[in-house]
Amino acid sequence: MRASPLSESRAARFGTGTLYLVPVALGDGGASPVLPPATLEVVRSLHAFVVENAKSARRFLKSVAYPHPLRQARFCVLDEHTREGDLDALLAPLLAGEDWGLMSEAGCPTVADPGAALVRRAHDAGVRVVPLVGPSSIVLALMASGMNGQRFTFHGYLPVDRAERAARVREIEARAHQATQVFIETPYRNPALLQSLLETCRADTLLCIAADLTLPAEFIATRVIADWKKKPPDLNQRPAVFLLSRAS
Amino acid sequence: MRASPLSESRAARFGTGTLYLVPVALGDGGASPVLPPATLEVVRSLHAFVVENAKSARRFLKSVAYPHPLRQARFCVLDEHTREGDLDALLAPLLAGEDWGLMSEAGCPTVADPGAALVRRAHDAGVRVVPLVGPSSIVLALMASGMNGQRFTFHGYLPVDRAERAARVREIEARAHQATQVFIETPYRNPALLQSLLETCRADTLLCIAADLTLPAEFIATRVIADWKKKPPDLNQRPAVFLLSRAS
Repeated sequence: MRASPLSESRAARFGTGTLYLVPVALGDGGASPVLPPATLEVVRSLHAFVVENAKSARRFLKSVAYPHPLRQARFCVLDEHTREGDLDALLAPLLAGEDWGLMSEAGCPTVADPGAALVRRAHDAGVRVVPLVGPSSIVLALMASGMNGQRFTFHGYLPVDRAERAARVREIEARAHQATQVFIETPYRNPALLQSLLETCRADTLLCIAADLTLPAEFIATRVIADWKKKPPDLNQRPAVFLLSRAS
Repeated sequence: MRASPLSESRAARFGTGTLYLVPVALGDGGASPVLPPATLEVVRSLHAFVVENAKSARRFLKSVAYPHPLRQARFCVLDEHTREGDLDALLAPLLAGEDWGLMSEAGCPTVADPGAALVRRAHDAGVRVVPLVGPSSIVLALMASGMNGQRFTFHGYLPVDRAERAARVREIEARAHQATQVFIETPYRNPALLQSLLETCRADTLLCIAADLTLPAEFIATRVIADWKKKPPDLNQRPAVFLLSRAS
């Protein structure tokens, strides 16, 4: 976590490329309607991408009418198995002057997603980093929750173990009067997380569930736990964001 | 913070309108390049808007080629002076079946912005809430910072008083090893905030400054405090997001 000597020479490095951070759509609805022209223009101009999964990256590029032959585009994988030492190879072409796009599987890269380490290294090496506008399920959910947007905490994924998860929910709920508490779960585990929330939280704690954001099945509702208990929704396999808030 | 009896009749209320949450551009660069087609389509179809400032709302609508006569569009103001009791008047046309857009001055409504109380009331009354995709300076900064995007806290504005601000910075820095700490300042106070950060934080704490996001003058850099001290940037009057992180 120290600055590289290269960072001082940023201004002098006209020869390095740019690392563009490319958001993608949140589901299979096609990316073009939810990505702005400025983002699409950059994506269509790039020839090399750092991705989590090459297959879905190709599908994304097809959906935005990528104008170049896909077999000529280059894809390098960066996922949770990528080690710190592998980042040099990803950085090298940027230092040699190439522009690359860092793409997520859904939503914004590096937010609840791998990739931050590469961005950090790019800063250290004086490579320009440019984030592009696109859908963030966390921000969409926060906006639509009606909860405090002046102060909020995002926790990522909660523990999978039942007892650990309940303990974590209790800890998060205890902070929900100061700031909106936001978290997510792998879609097939949503029912278990919802059950834990309904069993663990106080009856008057507010829970917002925002599922299938930007998709035709979009569902967003904010209710107290007591009301959710009467008619819990089926969230299995539906990408969802959960938000907790308590009156301060 | 209790559920209204109306919330149970949501499904039955086919007669209510929709409250669309409309992001706008982050600066004067024009909104069309940073707003996706799905967002623009909704904005152009609306005839009534809840806004912080009617003048800048009209300017925004002009910039996205709003197709209707602006003098026929309706604007209701919701700002930091709006009281809880005033929200009924804003909610009434939605309950009567009209669609409205809630617009921010910059970026996403209700995120570091008034409006959340209206959204909450809309949920209680069974009015459908639909968030639209657009630029969020917080997410753009987080993406581009190279810091931990799996866990972060947004604090909004820090105190203005010099001693209180320094105390708050110390408190935030103490949490910067667990999660990325994000905050903002009114642009003309940025120099005072930066000075406080440079004086208060430890030499090896990482600070990301993301200024003029999505604009031609965009500046994003992540360095340790010791490096920022050598050449502090002039952030006066430039909209900026500040992020702190420490090696865990």
